[in-house]
Order: sequence, then C-alpha cells, then structure tokens
Amino acid sequence: MSSFNDYPSRNHYTPSAPPFPDPLSFPPRPAQPAFPPSYYLGQPAQFPPGTHPEIIRSFSAVDRDGSGSIDEGELQVALSRGYQRFPLRTVRLLMFLFKRGSSSKIGPSEFAALWSCLGQWRAIFERFDRDRSGEIDSSELRDALLSLGYAVPPSVLQLLISKYDEGGRRRAALNFDSFVECGMIVKGLTEKFKEKDTRYTGSATLTYDAFLLIIIPFLVA
Amino acid sequence: MSSFNDYPSRNHYTPSAPPFPDPLSFPPRPAQPAFPPSYYLGQPAQFPPGTHPEIIRSFSAVDRDGSGSIDEGELQVALSRGYQRFPLRTVRLLMFLFKRGSSSKIGPSEFAALWSCLGQWRAIFERFDRDRSGEIDSSELRDALLSLGYAVPPSVLQLLISKYDEGGRRRAALNFDSFVECGMIVKGLTEKFKEKDTRYTGSATLTYDAFLLIIIPFLVA
Repeated sequence: MSSFNDYPSRNHYTPSAPPFPDPLSFPPRPAQPAFPPSYYLGQPAQFPPGTHPEIIRSFSAVDRDGSGSIDEGELQVALSRGYQRFPLRTVRLLMFLFKRGSSSKIGPSEFAALWSCLGQWRAIFERFDRDRSGEIDSSELRDALLSLGYAVPPSVLQLLISKYDEGGRRRAALNFDSFVECGMIVKGLTEKFKEKDTRYTGSATLTYDAFLLIIIPFLVA
Repeated sequence: MSSFNDYPSRNHYTPSAPPFPDPLSFPPRPAQPAFPPSYYLGQPAQFPPGTHPEIIRSFSAVDRDGSGSIDEGELQVALSRGYQRFPLRTVRLLMFLFKRGSSSKIGPSEFAALWSCLGQWRAIFERFDRDRSGEIDSSELRDALLSLGYAVPPSVLQLLISKYDEGGRRRAALNFDSFVECGMIVKGLTEKFKEKDTRYTGSATLTYDAFLLIIIPFLVA
C-alpha cells in the first residue's frame, strides 16, 4: 500500500488516485487531494491520496486522542461499525499482518490498507457463497483463495476447514470471520514463504532461527 | 512414551518399568504389573507400565463414560485438579502436541506422557524462578529452555516474551501458564523442524505445502 509520501508513478496509476503533478514543474508541486483536505491534512494522521472519506471518518472516530494511531481495541470498534464485530483473535491477526515494525498500533495508511483488503475479501466471500448461506465450504474456499492468487493444496484446505469450522454444524464450512482469518493466515504465510523462495521454486530453505521467527508471530496470544 | 504393548527391551530398561518376563520361557508370559492390576487391567484404558496411580486416578475421574479417551474439556478439568486451571488455548495446544493422528481426544498413554511432561516443566519453572515470584524473565526462560535441550536464540526469546507477557506488568516475564505454552511451542516446532533437518545441519528445506501443513496446526483456533 503506498503511503502519502510514496506518490504513485505514472506506471502505477489507478483511477482512485488523485491527478499526477505536472512533470514539467520543478520542484514538483505537492499532490493535490481529490477530496476536502480537512480529512487528512492538518492532522497527524496521513492517509494515502484517494482514501475514501468513509475510511478516514472510521479511523478518526476511534482515534479519539488524535494521536494518529490506534490499538487493537480501537480497531475492533472501528471494524464493528464498518463491517462486523470480529473476535479479538481475528483483530490481533489483522493488526499483526498490517502493522509496521514492532509497534502495537497502526496508523492511517495501514488502517486504509486493512479496510480496503477486508472490503475485497467481503466481496469475494459474497461471490463464492453462491447459495447466500453466510458460509463457504471447502471447494468454495479453494476457489476463493485461488481468485486471490493462492493455490492452496487440498490437504491444507482440509486442515484449515477442520480448525476454523465451528463444531456441531451439519457441514464443514466457514463464516466470514473464519474466512477472513483463514485467508489472512494463508496470505501472511505465503508472503513469508515467498521472501525465502525468491526464485519461486516452490521450496525454501530456512534456518532454525528463521523458522521460529516466521511462525511465532502468527501464534496469536 | 512406550505404551503397554511396547514392552521395553532389555536395552531400554528403566527403574519404573515392571520386571522383565523370563527370557527362557516360551511363549513369554504376559508382563506382570508392579502395582495393583485393577488400576489399568480390565479397563479399555491402557496405561504404560509404571504409570503413577495418581495419573490413572486423574484420568479415570474425568473419563466418566469409561470410553478410554478424553476431550479437551475433560483434560482441562483433570489438569485443574492436578496442576492448575489452564486457559482452553493452552489445553488445546497440549492436546494437539500429545494426541496421535487426527483424533480430537487423547487416551491413557498420551495423558500419562502429558502429565509427566507438565510435572517436569513445573519442576523446571520452580528451579528457574529463583526469587519465587511466580514468574520467570527472559534470561531465566533462556536457561530453562536450554535445560530442556532447546538453544533458543535471543531474538526468538524476545519475541516469545513479548507475545506471552501479560500487558501492564512492571517487567517482561512469564507465569507458569505462559511458560508452558511458550515451552510447548518451542518443543513442538523444534521437533517439526528436526523432522526436516534429519542431518542436524541447522537448516531445513520445505516445500510450500509442507510449510503450511507444519504451521497451521499450531494456530490454535
């Protein structure tokens, strides 16, 4: 996710981004936001250009001290208003996957990325929940993850479903909470794996230390 | 942990095992237990020879239907009586690490192994909690894990402490619950790593599938 300082290059233009600065002017003029500057200028919080005002409002509503960063409890409240109430475990996982460095809080750009990502996942969940049951089953999960670019083998799908399926249901299936959690775990672990498999061979060699350091952060305490 | 059927060979004699059958008799006589047979004979549950009667009583007290296996709720009750009340998350982790195959329950031999292991860890915790504060800090955790045979690098120790330390304490330290959880995670992950590093080189090559299949079971849902 680009931050306000990472102004998109011409090669990465997206329709939601504000207009490019005039390349002939030097030094380049600051980027002009496409929506009222009061939403993100003059505050410690800096949202990427083009951030939907609703996302900024959601963040500001929970960042009551205006510090420009929110903790897991505040994120849970913001998501409850915009999406649904996620269990704290899911919120912690989202926090871990989107925060930068060792901070226990996230700022505007991470929040905007997280919010947009959840929006995409909600759309995918609804697309693959073909019978509108509010749940997706194993083969729907496979297709949903594939549409996100993750080719997850059947043994892993089975394991995910068995762990995240609520006991006592008539069939093995995931609700949106569990879908987000499963999907985020696959996304997070796949990204970690790719960092160690830079040539995309499908195998990665890890030292014992690296192995532990990759896994332990996913064990949400 | 040997089961009752894995009768110890002469090379693996341990003081707690019952006497060996007479090698000159053929066919060998069944092993004679060193404590009253009513504890483990004539029940579906089969404890390894030499299991402490207290462990057998603890198991039987929660296995009310006498099925010979107990689930995570029953394990939590048994541990509450014998050790302390562990959070369900810790109980699930213990269950996962000690159960065999895909079962969601554990039988007598797994229960006995788990119980003995906890006893050892309690003794280690008490040994390394030198000031009897009920907590061990980072360097004590390092020494405790080292005494169990796990040389955990400082970066991993720091990560473990930061995840399992309860917020708001004056110093980074673990209580017995968290110590057990951290220790079991290190033990479990190290064993998985060793399976892939059979020549003890300190590095292991994993396919994407194997990587996911190792990690996901540790993510206790």
